[in-house]
This record gives sequence, C-alpha cells and structure tokens, in this order.
Amino acid sequence: MYQYEPPLEDYKFILHKLLKVQDLDLKGYSDLAPEYTNQILEEAGKIAKDELAPLNRYGDIEGCKLENGIVRTPKGFKAAFNKVNKGGWTGINCETKYGGQGLPHVIGLTIGEMFCSANMALNMYHGLTHGAYSAIYYHGSESQKEMYLPNLVTCKWTGTMNLTEPQCGTDLGLIRTKAEKKTDGSYKITGQKIFISAGDHDLSENIIHLVLAKIPGSPAGVKGISMFIVPKFLVNKDGSLGNRNDVSVGKIEEKMGIHGNATCVMNYDGATGFLISEENKGLKAMFTMMNEARLGVGLQGIGQAEVAFQQAARYAKERVQGKDITKKGDEKQAHAIINHPDVRRNLMDQKVFIEGARALALWCATMLDAGERNLDKDSEGLASLLIPVVKGFITDKGFESTINSQQVLGGHGYIEEWGMSQFVRDSRIAMIYEGTNGIQALDLVGRKLSADGGKHTIHFIKTIKNFIKEAETCNSLKDDITTPLSEALDDAEKCLQFFMVEGIKNPNQALAGATDFMHLIGYLSLGFMWARMAKTAHEELEKNKEFNPLYETKLASAKYFFKRHLPETELRRKRVLSGSKEMMNIPEIHF
Amino acid sequence: MYQYEPPLEDYKFILHKLLKVQDLDLKGYSDLAPEYTNQILEEAGKIAKDELAPLNRYGDIEGCKLENGIVRTPKGFKAAFNKVNKGGWTGINCETKYGGQGLPHVIGLTIGEMFCSANMALNMYHGLTHGAYSAIYYHGSESQKEMYLPNLVTCKWTGTMNLTEPQCGTDLGLIRTKAEKKTDGSYKITGQKIFISAGDHDLSENIIHLVLAKIPGSPAGVKGISMFIVPKFLVNKDGSLGNRNDVSVGKIEEKMGIHGNATCVMNYDGATGFLISEENKGLKAMFTMMNEARLGVGLQGIGQAEVAFQQAARYAKERVQGKDITKKGDEKQAHAIINHPDVRRNLMDQKVFIEGARALALWCATMLDAGERNLDKDSEGLASLLIPVVKGFITDKGFESTINSQQVLGGHGYIEEWGMSQFVRDSRIAMIYEGTNGIQALDLVGRKLSADGGKHTIHFIKTIKNFIKEAETCNSLKDDITTPLSEALDDAEKCLQFFMVEGIKNPNQALAGATDFMHLIGYLSLGFMWARMAKTAHEELEKNKEFNPLYETKLASAKYFFKRHLPETELRRKRVLSGSKEMMNIPEIHF
Repeated sequence: MYQYEPPLEDYKFILHKLLKVQDLDLKGYSDLAPEYTNQILEEAGKIAKDELAPLNRYGDIEGCKLENGIVRTPKGFKAAFNKVNKGGWTGINCETKYGGQGLPHVIGLTIGEMFCSANMALNMYHGLTHGAYSAIYYHGSESQKEMYLPNLVTCKWTGTMNLTEPQCGTDLGLIRTKAEKKTDGSYKITGQKIFISAGDHDLSENIIHLVLAKIPGSPAGVKGISMFIVPKFLVNKDGSLGNRNDVSVGKIEEKMGIHGNATCVMNYDGATGFLISEENKGLKAMFTMMNEARLGVGLQGIGQAEVAFQQAARYAKERVQGKDITKKGDEKQAHAIINHPDVRRNLMDQKVFIEGARALALWCATMLDAGERNLDKDSEGLASLLIPVVKGFITDKGFESTINSQQVLGGHGYIEEWGMSQFVRDSRIAMIYEGTNGIQALDLVGRKLSADGGKHTIHFIKTIKNFIKEAETCNSLKDDITTPLSEALDDAEKCLQFFMVEGIKNPNQALAGATDFMHLIGYLSLGFMWARMAKTAHEELEKNKEFNPLYETKLASAKYFFKRHLPETELRRKRVLSGSKEMMNIPEIHF
Repeated sequence: MYQYEPPLEDYKFILHKLLKVQDLDLKGYSDLAPEYTNQILEEAGKIAKDELAPLNRYGDIEGCKLENGIVRTPKGFKAAFNKVNKGGWTGINCETKYGGQGLPHVIGLTIGEMFCSANMALNMYHGLTHGAYSAIYYHGSESQKEMYLPNLVTCKWTGTMNLTEPQCGTDLGLIRTKAEKKTDGSYKITGQKIFISAGDHDLSENIIHLVLAKIPGSPAGVKGISMFIVPKFLVNKDGSLGNRNDVSVGKIEEKMGIHGNATCVMNYDGATGFLISEENKGLKAMFTMMNEARLGVGLQGIGQAEVAFQQAARYAKERVQGKDITKKGDEKQAHAIINHPDVRRNLMDQKVFIEGARALALWCATMLDAGERNLDKDSEGLASLLIPVVKGFITDKGFESTINSQQVLGGHGYIEEWGMSQFVRDSRIAMIYEGTNGIQALDLVGRKLSADGGKHTIHFIKTIKNFIKEAETCNSLKDDITTPLSEALDDAEKCLQFFMVEGIKNPNQALAGATDFMHLIGYLSLGFMWARMAKTAHEELEKNKEFNPLYETKLASAKYFFKRHLPETELRRKRVLSGSKEMMNIPEIHF
C-alpha cells in the first residue's frame, strides 16, 4: 500500500509567496489569507491521505462490475465518496446560492490535485459531476439550475459527459445520436455513446447525463449539435425521483488503468432529454466549460506525478545498493541509492517538473477566477491560450514523470504490489481524454494563437518580457535565469514568425509543428514560473538573512531547470521550423 | 486481435544493401547470400505471424498460474513453443556440434525481433534458454556442455538466470545465497531468488537454473560470487532425468505486463548445484554473455515498437475523422487521419526510430559475430562500447514509441481489447531487466568509454569521421546529412572532454550526465546509421534511374531524422556539461 503526503509546504509557497492569492481581490471571495486557506488545504489533505489513498490499489484490483444492468464500484468507494460529499468538498468552488462554498477555482483545483494523487479513479466521479454542474450553471435555464444544481453540488446526484460514439471521437461533426422533439418540449434521444466515464455506478441516487446529439434537419457538421440533459431517473417537479429513463449500460470497457472508474457504453433508446441552451448550440456550450475541465486534467498529470515521485523518493532514501563513489571508507559498503547521481538526476527531473507545472496550473486558475469574477478579459484570454498547454504538455510530462518514478524502483517498479504500475497506467488516460494531446496542440496553433487577433499571444510574450526587464536588474539571477529565459522566448517568437509566413502558404507547414510548439511553450511557461519562483525565493532570502533550506532548494531547483530542461525550447524550435515536407511526401504505403 | 506483418523488406535492405552481410566472410558461415537469408526470414516470419501473434493477447489475459507447486502457462503456449522448437528456430545461432544451425548472431537476432514482436512473453522462454546455452557454452566444462547443451539448443530443456535477491538487484556484491561444497564436488545451494523470468513452467521437460551464489569464506563483494548449474531435475549420466532437485517456486509475481511469462520467486533449499568455471569467477562468466543478452533486449525494444507501429499505421489509414485541411471540396467531409500532419509526425517519429535502431542493433550483431568467429578484437570492442547504448537508449525510445502508437488510436488505445496497452505494458520491462537503463548509462560512462585505454571510443569516433569524409564528397547529402552528423559528433566529443577534465576531479560530475550521454550517443549512432542508409539509398537511386519509392522513402526518412531528431544531441550535450552541483547539494529532506 502506498503512502501519500499532501505537499502542503509547496501549496503555501505557490499560493501565498508566488501568486499572492490573498491580494487577488476576487469579487465574492474576500478571505484568502494564508491562515484560512492553509486550514482548508490541511483538512482536504487529511481526507486524501486517510480516506482516499488507502482505497486506490484496491480499486485497481477489483475494478467495476456490471451486474444485472447495474454497475458496482469497488468495495469502500461508496463510503469514501460519501465522506468527501459530507465534508462539503464537492462544492468548494460552486456558487453558494446552490449550496457551494463559493471559493475560487485556484483553491478547488489545489484540492483536486490532492484527491487525484490519492485516488484518481474515485475522484473522477466527483470531477465529472463538477463538469455537469458547470455546463448547467453556465448554459442551463433558471428552472434547470434549480432542479439539478443543488444535488450536483453535494454529489447526491452525479454527472457525466456523453460525446464519443464509435465512429466519432475528435470530430464531433460525425455524431449520429438523434434528438427528436416531442410535443411536451422535451426530446427523444436515440443512439449509442462510448467511453463514458462514470457512466453508471452505485455511488449516487441519480445520474445526470449531458448528451450531445443532432436534431433531424439541423445543419451538417458541428454546427448542428445540441446538448441535452438526460437524467437516469426523471425528476419530478417537487424534486423527487420519478421513472427510470430509457438509458442503459451496454458494457464496461476493460481499460489499461483507472479501473475504479466505470467507463461505459451507454445506450439511449428513446430516452427523454431536455435541451440545454438553444438548439444547435451544443458545441458552444461544450467549449465554454472546457477551460476548467482541461485545467483539471492538467492537474491530474501533476497529481499522479506527485504521488509517484513520493514513492520513488522514499524508496531511494531507503534502498541500499552500490557504493557512493565520493565516500571514502570500506570498499564493500553500500549506500542509499539517492546518493547516486543518476538516481538524483531522475528525482530532480520529477521534482522540477512537478513544482513548475503546479505553479503554472495554479497561476492559470487564478486567471480563470479573475476572468469569471472580475470580468477581466485579458486574464481570461491568457488562461485560454495557456490551457491547451497545461492539458497537453503537463499530462505528457506528468505521465513521463510517473515512468521515471517507476524506474527508480527497478524490478519492484514493475510489480503491481508496489503500486508504481498503477500510477503509470492511470495517468496515461490524461493524455487522451478531454481532447487528445494532439488536439490540444492543434487548438493552440490553429485557434488560440490567433484568437482575438493574436491579442493573447502578444499579452503572453509581453508578460514574460516585462518580468525579464524587472528581474534582470538583479545580477545574481541574470546569467542563470533571465538571460536563458530571454533566449527561450526568442525560440517561441521564431516559431510564431514561421507560422505566420509559412502557415498561410500551406497550413500543414504549421500544423506539422503543433505538438513540438506546444512543448516549446510548455518549457517556456515552466521556465517563466521557475524564474518567478527563483526571484521570490531570492527576495525571501534577502529579507531573511538566516539560512532557509526551503528557499535555497527552490533557487537550486530553478537553476537545475534552467540548465537541464529549458534548453529543450531550442530543439523544439528546430523541429517546428523543419516544416512538413518529408513527412507529407512519403507514400502512404510506406507506413 | 492484432495483426503482425514481418518487416521483410526492411531486413533485406539492412542485411544486404546496408550491412552487406554476404561479404562479411565470417568463419564457419559460408552462405549468407540474399536468397538464402530471405528464405529463412520468410519462414520465421510465418511462424511469428501465424503461430505466435495470435496467442499474444490471450497470454496477457490468462497469464501464468501456480497450481500445486507447478506453473501453468496460458493455453496454446505449449503447442506454439513446440512448433518453434521443431522448426529448429531455437538453435539458429548455436553451434552445429550441439545441434544448432550454426548461423551468425545477426540472423538469430533478426528472427528474435520477429518472435518478440509477435509474442514477447512466449519468446522469453526461448531467449532465456539461449542465455543459459551461452553461459555454459563459454564457461562450462566439456562434460557440462555435452550434458546440457544439446537439450538447451532444442529447448527440450529450458534455462533461467538467477541473480536478484530481495536485498540485492544491481549490486550483486550483496548476494546472500550460499553454496557449500559437498564431498562429491557438487555444491549445496541455499537461498531465495526473486524476479526469475521463466522460473518455472510446463513447457519443457527440465529447467536448467543458472544461479549466482557465494561460497562461505570467499572474498566479500562481487569478487566472491560463483555461478552454478542447478537443474530442476538432476540429470543422470546417461542423460535421462533423475530426482527432483530441492528448488521450488515461492510465488508468481503480479506484473504490469509480460503476463504470459512466469516471473517467479525461487527457493533453493539445499539444492544440488554444479560449479561453472571456477570458484569466485561467477561475475566474469555473467559479463561475457551479457553483450549478446543486452543486444537481445535492445531488439525487444524494436520488436515491440514495430508491432505497435503497424497497428497505429493501419488505424491511421482506416480511421476517418476530421478534414484534411489542404483538400478542397465538401467542408463536411472527413478524411483518414494519416492525412493530418500531427498524426503523420507521430508515425514518422516511430518509423525513423524503428528503422534506425534496427540498423544499429544489427550492425552491432555483425560486429559480435566478427569478434567471435574471426577473433576481430576491434569489432568486438566497438560492439561492447555500443551495446549499453543499444540496450538503454533503444529500450527507452522503443517504449516511448509504443506510447506514441497507442496515442494514434485515441480512446481506443486505452482499451485493452485493441492490444495497444499490452505493447506498452510489455515493452516497459525492457528498460528494467538485464541491468536497468541507468546501469547501462553508468556502464557506458564509467567503464566502456575508458576500456582498453579508450581505444574503442576512439575507434567509434574515427569510424564516423571516416564515413563523413567519404560521404561529404556527395554534394546532395552534404547539407542535410554529413554536416549535421559532424556537429552531432562534435557534441559527443565535447562531453568526452568534460568527462576527462571534470570526472577526474569529481566523478559525480560525469555520472550526473550518464543517462543524457547515453542518449546523446544513441542519437549520434542512429544518425550515423541513417546517414549510411541515406548514402546507400542515394547510390541505389543513382545506379537505377527509374523511380524507386523504397529508396526515395529511405532518403526522405533520413532527412526527417536529421532535421527533427539528431538536434537532440545538442540538448543532451548541454545537460551533460551542466554537471552535478545543484542536484547533489539539495538536502535529502527536500525529496
């Protein structure tokens, strides 16, 4: 059984020293002082550590079972699920009007990281419910909000998102599920959906399916998609549960990981659905809730990397094997493997990724908050530019980080009993769902870069340039931090120029570099966050002359990141600039 | 069920156009003409495709079971195992004197790649037997060879390698298994071994365990290790099977993958063992057979990447999703995803890795052959320099390649039914066993670079330099191929210089860069192979003026590799030169 320790020190540093969330002045959130947020995070950490983490491996082994049309979750899941709900953790960043706690996303996502570290499969039931809450909150009618939101906030009812069909994943224009309007204004939903996470289970009284479907006669392609609420049990006017709707589970998929979460084939056989927003506006409704969802998936990448890193670090301190070559003395003596440089290198790679990515994701969360509560369009725009990077880059690297953790344990890493395999298998899905990482890259290059006339891209570059200008006055950061950050920014700008010049002539020239560009911006963004963390640590050390190992370590970690990871922007720039010629010219038969 | 097609065209190109194995003039192997080797490879390919591949997924699902002390392999494994044996495939590169076919390693390993693509778990039973054959062949007494080799060649008996113990993996100096000499000259073996692949099973009549143990009173550490033959059933003088030896299976480990291969805890309770070579020379015996074994693991990385790539390419040609942005016409039409640049990019990354790595591994195999048969010390030395790279770099990248293949299938890649998860889970072990990839990197930097006064390192550099000199006279290869290859070589030389200057002062300065240096040499070596392939393709095209898509594609692939992958040497060089300061100074408590 693995152990999980909430990384509270790092949260404190990021939230209060780096992002200074207490000064954000978000409307409706008056109190984000350290004492208050620390207390919340500590309590959430206890739930994660004591209630969720102990069930994680069990959920992997037992998985979900379909018995007589009903999905059974692993033993213990229901009790833990209820404990989270009763603690009010499910509505932490939901509106108070519907029973939420009214806290900002930055706090909700921090808690989400812990819950995901502890038990990703179980936390997904909560996460998807939050997604359904958001869809109805932003696009539902007043009466829909009143009918569904309070129970979604408490997770008395849970939610799902039904997009994928056998012939249609990324390309939602190919959806075949049909929605026919009935005389009472509701719709008759017919079709099959696949890969539906938390599609059915025994954790909640009702399940609110959000389903994308096409109304006969609507425009072809994505412009003819509508979104519907299809409850498992229809809800009576007084809020009580009515008849079972005509939706059923076809089967549970056998997956590589997240076994504790039921991934279902869902059959809609003339089920009753209720339109959200307007006809044919389904895709738009999807898109506006996507930022928060994708940010959440990015956090999953961090959460899994964090818990895997903790096991690897503990193992490295305990496992005695081989001599520390710098230590004098008995030739035959062996030392803990954390003393061996290649193991250190591996642990450092994990550490600087996790802390940098966490800072980036939580910074984006504060910008979403500012956008939502303060109607700060610039912040919202910058967040929406960076969110495909947070989702795509961080889940790519987060998965890689779990692989690196697994490697520290050698042969034991490959044995299921040690739990490392599960982190690898669970985290793998984050690169695929909520839009594959290739799609994130296309979203970034094909859509976000030029959105609103490229305004947010310019804002991003300016933000980094302003920081460099301010920070480079500090001589002790210049060589190690600000100068290389400048060079990395230059790599990004060269790619942007290439996209502008070449992409217009032939879009494939740009799109062939999409994934590499996403990674370039990922490294640049992590570099920016590490530069800010280095500056913060440096200032704290200046203020407080006595030796403080936390800040010393942050500074050393920043330098490590800049020496060993940031130079990847140069490689990625070269790849982007190499264009698409060879790859597109090779005959299909040679693949 | 996945489909596997033996990549016979590529084998032909590599063996006969690139490596020209028919001209190698290996003693004892007179006939390596294309017609002959093609026929062998075609036949082996049929076995792989028709007998082994159809069982692969079944082996994953059913796994191995311990029933009343006996391990049962998955249904169908025994019949397929016997078919391979009866075809004579098990002794392909064993000596004819013991019933082998007497072919060189380069052919044996090519066949090994196919068998591994088709069914890695099943092929491991054969592979480990070949390892046992080699250990006894190189280090056993004449009577041991006569007693064991003929049945190991046919796999009537199988073999295992017993190194790891609970407290001792990499550091074999910590071995506790005890070997006490008995009056009849045999030894009493007592101890527990873990992670023993193919430790027990129902495929063969007898299992020949090779066990590392310590004789009481022998020197401490690795200098006091001896190697023993411990047969499951003792063998009578007439070759018939005698009593059951005191070795038993403690349990089968639950692993992330290779479920069809039984990974056992083996208990030796005073079992009878027979010394191989001399007392305390066990590690030396291990080392001499390691080159071939590690090369074989490298081939596993390629084999798994190849089969995963085939599924991804097929899916990409069939799956219709999203519009090809360069095609005019109906806005709503969707196209096969192989037309989308990001999917192409992914497939190309896999393709250039697989073909380059295959060329490298098979080149190393020809050098091992030259060393063994022609006593060509230079070739042997160069092979032993490159083999940690083949094992470490190729299995790292091979695993990554299976991940990329899985990504092409989107959500379907995560569902076990499609088989992509199994390739990922199976190939993961190759980074761990036969010495973790971190250990390969240390072997390269700490041992191989300076072996024999650095002679082989100089030979490697000279070989590339000579090639460049010869090839750069060809103008059409200069800009795209020879110039960047030169630069990559320069990156390697800068690291070597750093190791010489800094490593002497503080070995951690060098060792902190071990993994990055291994990858640098990996990219450089693949670059060298791609340059040679480009030159070969170019020459063939010159000779034969009509359009030949195979050579055109090889040339385009080489250019792709040089533009997109070779520049990684620069990144790795920067990492190596950054040394060890920050990572070693951070207090242990901050991990």
